[in-house]
Amino acid sequence: MTISSSLTTQDVRDALLGFLEPDQVLDDSEQTRAYSHDRAEWADFTPPLAVVLARSTDDVAASVRWAAAAGVRVVARGAGTGLSGGANGIENCIVVSLEELNRVLEINTDERYAVTQPGVINDELRRIVAEKGLWYPPDPASSAISTIGGNVATNAGGICCVKYGVTRDYVLGLTVVLADGDVVELGRRTAKGVAGYDLTSLLVGSEGTLGIITSVTVKLRPLAGRDERAVIGYFPSLEAAGTAVADVSRAGIVPAALELIDHTCLSAVDDWLHLGLPSNVDTMLLARIDEAGAAGDALADRMADIFEAAGGTDVERATDPAEIDRLFQARRLAHPALERIGRLLTEDICVPRRAVPEMLGRIQSIAAAHDIVIANIAHAGDGNLHPLIVAPDGDDAAKARAKIAFDAIVASCLELGGTVTGEHGVGLLKLPGVRTELGPRVLALHRSVKDALDPAGTLNPGKAF
Amino acid sequence: MTISSSLTTQDVRDALLGFLEPDQVLDDSEQTRAYSHDRAEWADFTPPLAVVLARSTDDVAASVRWAAAAGVRVVARGAGTGLSGGANGIENCIVVSLEELNRVLEINTDERYAVTQPGVINDELRRIVAEKGLWYPPDPASSAISTIGGNVATNAGGICCVKYGVTRDYVLGLTVVLADGDVVELGRRTAKGVAGYDLTSLLVGSEGTLGIITSVTVKLRPLAGRDERAVIGYFPSLEAAGTAVADVSRAGIVPAALELIDHTCLSAVDDWLHLGLPSNVDTMLLARIDEAGAAGDALADRMADIFEAAGGTDVERATDPAEIDRLFQARRLAHPALERIGRLLTEDICVPRRAVPEMLGRIQSIAAAHDIVIANIAHAGDGNLHPLIVAPDGDDAAKARAKIAFDAIVASCLELGGTVTGEHGVGLLKLPGVRTELGPRVLALHRSVKDALDPAGTLNPGKAF
Repeated sequence: MTISSSLTTQDVRDALLGFLEPDQVLDDSEQTRAYSHDRAEWADFTPPLAVVLARSTDDVAASVRWAAAAGVRVVARGAGTGLSGGANGIENCIVVSLEELNRVLEINTDERYAVTQPGVINDELRRIVAEKGLWYPPDPASSAISTIGGNVATNAGGICCVKYGVTRDYVLGLTVVLADGDVVELGRRTAKGVAGYDLTSLLVGSEGTLGIITSVTVKLRPLAGRDERAVIGYFPSLEAAGTAVADVSRAGIVPAALELIDHTCLSAVDDWLHLGLPSNVDTMLLARIDEAGAAGDALADRMADIFEAAGGTDVERATDPAEIDRLFQARRLAHPALERIGRLLTEDICVPRRAVPEMLGRIQSIAAAHDIVIANIAHAGDGNLHPLIVAPDGDDAAKARAKIAFDAIVASCLELGGTVTGEHGVGLLKLPGVRTELGPRVLALHRSVKDALDPAGTLNPGKAF
Repeated sequence: MTISSSLTTQDVRDALLGFLEPDQVLDDSEQTRAYSHDRAEWADFTPPLAVVLARSTDDVAASVRWAAAAGVRVVARGAGTGLSGGANGIENCIVVSLEELNRVLEINTDERYAVTQPGVINDELRRIVAEKGLWYPPDPASSAISTIGGNVATNAGGICCVKYGVTRDYVLGLTVVLADGDVVELGRRTAKGVAGYDLTSLLVGSEGTLGIITSVTVKLRPLAGRDERAVIGYFPSLEAAGTAVADVSRAGIVPAALELIDHTCLSAVDDWLHLGLPSNVDTMLLARIDEAGAAGDALADRMADIFEAAGGTDVERATDPAEIDRLFQARRLAHPALERIGRLLTEDICVPRRAVPEMLGRIQSIAAAHDIVIANIAHAGDGNLHPLIVAPDGDDAAKARAKIAFDAIVASCLELGGTVTGEHGVGLLKLPGVRTELGPRVLALHRSVKDALDPAGTLNPGKAF
C-alpha cells in the first residue's frame, strides 16, 4: 500500500470538489479539529485533511474511490459519540461524516422493518417507528445523541439488551460502500434467510474498517403488548448489589433492564439536575419488568424478594410511565453528569453474571491501589460494567494513574472470563486488550478478512482489532 | 491449488491410520456410499475416498492438516439430514463425520449457556438442558434426527423461529478447525461482547466451507414462564390461509409458531400414522401462543378471530400439552410421510409475509403448468415456505418436470422480494438461485472471504455460494 503524504489540504479540497458541492467539504483547521475525534479523547487522534459531509451513497462511494486512488485513508463518522476512538482521525485521512444522511426511508408495518439512513439519531428512529405502532429496541445510553450508523458500526448495546438483544440482532440488511468505492446490498428483508455468508453480521461492529454503511434495514417489534414496571432497590455496597444481580440471573428471571448506579453517579446526577435522588445510599439497582398482566406483576414481586434477600432496602415498585422514565433518565445522565466533574476514562467490560460482585470488588481495590476515583454504572443484568475513571481536569498525575487503573481492570476482567468490550467497541482504546483476548491466530484471521475486503488498507486502518 | 487425483483409497487409509484408530476410518465402498450424500439426493454427489469418524477436535485437526498437505478436500458431516447437498461428497474428498462427538460438555445454569459437541442431536440437547430448567429454542422439523453441528453449519431455522429466532441467534461461541488444521476459539461466554469481528456469525451457516466446528457454546433461555396454547383453523384454500397469516403479522401478533399444512401433507401423515387428522379440509393453520396468563389467552382469542375473518372454520384452542405436542408432531412428520409416496424435491423459499398468499397461488399455478404434485408445508408466520415437489419413484419424466418447477418457484420467489433459502442452506441445490440473488459483486466478496480463510480450497469447495 502506498500512502501519499505529499497531498496538501488544498489538493484534497480541489479533488473532492470535483464531485462534491462546496458546502460538503470542510477543511479549515477549526472544522477539521472538530471532526478529529469522538468522545474518547484519551486515545490518539490526528485532524483529517478534510471532512466530507456526505448527502448520498454516491457521495460516499465517490469519496472512497478517490481516496483509494490517492492513497488517502477514510474514517467514517456518525455523531462522534463513540467512547473508544473508533472515529478518531488518523494520519493522512479524510473523515466522511454521515450526519446529513438523516432520513428514515421506509417503514413497513406488515413486515415490521424500517430502512433508515445512517445519520438518523437513535431516539428519532424510535420515535418515528413508534408512530406506526412499532418498536426499535436497541437503546444505548447515548440514544438521544448517537446515530443508527454509529450504533451499527460499533454493534451498540444498551439498557434493554439484557432481554431484547443488541444492535446486531436487529440488522436485517445494509447498503455498504466497499473499500474500492463499489456499492453493495447485503442481507435481506424477509424474516429468515441463509443465502450465502452472513456478511451483514460481519459488517455490524466492524467500526468502519470493512465498508461504510449508507443505509440500514432494521427489524422492528410491535410496540404494544408490554406492560412496564420498575423495581428499585438500595444496597449497602457494590458487592451486595452485585449479589442481587447474580441471584436474579440464577432464578431464571430475564428483566427488560437491570441497571446498577453507584453512589458517585447518583450524587453527580442529583447535583446537576436536582432530581431528588437519594444521596444517603451506596448503590441502586434499577430494573424493568415488561411481561404483560399478572405474570409480569408476579415476576416483579420475585425480583423485589431477591433484592431484599441480598440486603436491599426501600425496595419499591413504580408503574407510572412518567416515573419509570424519570428513573431511567437518571441512569442515562450518569455519564454526562460525571463528565462535569472531571475527565472520564470510560471502561466497558463484560463478565459472566455470577462474576459481577467479584469484579465490582476488584474495581474498588484497583481504585484504592491507584488512588483514583472510579464511579460505576453497569448494565448489570448482562454483566456489562462501565467503571468510569475520573481524573480532575489538568491533573496529569491522576490521568497517568487512571490509565494504569484502566489496564488493571481489563486484565482483571479477562481473568474472570470476561471480554474487554461489551458494547463500546475496540476503537483505539481497547486495542491492547482485544489483542490479548483474541490471541495471535484469531487476530491473523481478522487480518486476513480485513485484507480480503480492504487490501489497500483504505478504510479506518489500525482500528478494531 | 493442487488436487492430487493419484491417491488410492489404500493410500488414504494408510495415511489416516498414522493418527487415527482403525475403527475410525471407513473405506469400503458400501460405507463410503452411505456417507456420500445428505437427503438432497437430487444434487450431485461422489463417494469420498474415506470417511473419518472423529472422536476429538485433534482428530479433526489432524485429518484436515493431512488433507491440506495431500491436496485432498474435506467435507464435514453431522447426521446427513441436510436437504440442500451441503454434506454431499465431492471428487477427491474425505468425509469427516462428527456424529461420535456427541457429548454435552457443560451446562451453566447461572449464565444460561451450554457447551456441546457438534454430534449431539438437537432434541437430545433440548432434553438435557430442560433437566436443568433451561430451554434451547431452535427447533428444526428434523430436531429428532439432526445434529447441533449441522444446525449451526446451515444456520437451521425451525418452527419457533417466528418468535425466538434461528440457530445463529443462539450461538455464543465456537471451537473451529481452520483450513490449515489450526484450532481456534471464536466468540465468548458473556452475555454481550464486541471484541473484534463477528467471526462466530460468519462461521454459522457457512456449510463447512470456512472451518469445521468441533464445539458450540449455545445461549439458553429459562424453560419456565411460558404458557402454551395451540390455535388451529381450517381454510378452504391455500390463499385463504395465506391471507390469515398476513393478517396476523399486520395485527402485530408474534406467535411462538405459525405453521401451514396443506391437504396433501395432512393426508400423507394420516395415511401413515392414523392420527385421526381431518381429511376433508384443504389447508390447516397451526399456531402456538406462549405468553403467560390472561395476556396470552387474549392473544389467542385475537388470533382465532383473525383466522375466522379470513375464512377459517372449526377454529379451536388446545391447552393440554399432550394435545399440543400431538398437533405439532403431525407437522414435523409431514416431510417423512411424503417421502413414503415419492421422491421429494424440497423447496425452501422465504418471502415477505404479505406475499405469502400470492406465492402460494403461484406455486399452485406452477404445479398445474408442469403437471406435478406439489405439497405445501410452511413456517408461514416467517413467510418461509417448503413446497415439496413429489415425483413418483422411477418416473424420470416427472423428475425432469420437478426440476423445472423447482427453478420456476425460485424465480417467482425472487420476483416477490424473497430469498432462495430461508433455512435449509445453499448446499448444491440452491447454487444457481443464490448466485442470482446475491449478484456478481457480493459473490466476489464471498469468494474473497473464502480465499482468505481457505486459500487452498480444502474445505467443502464449490458449496454455499
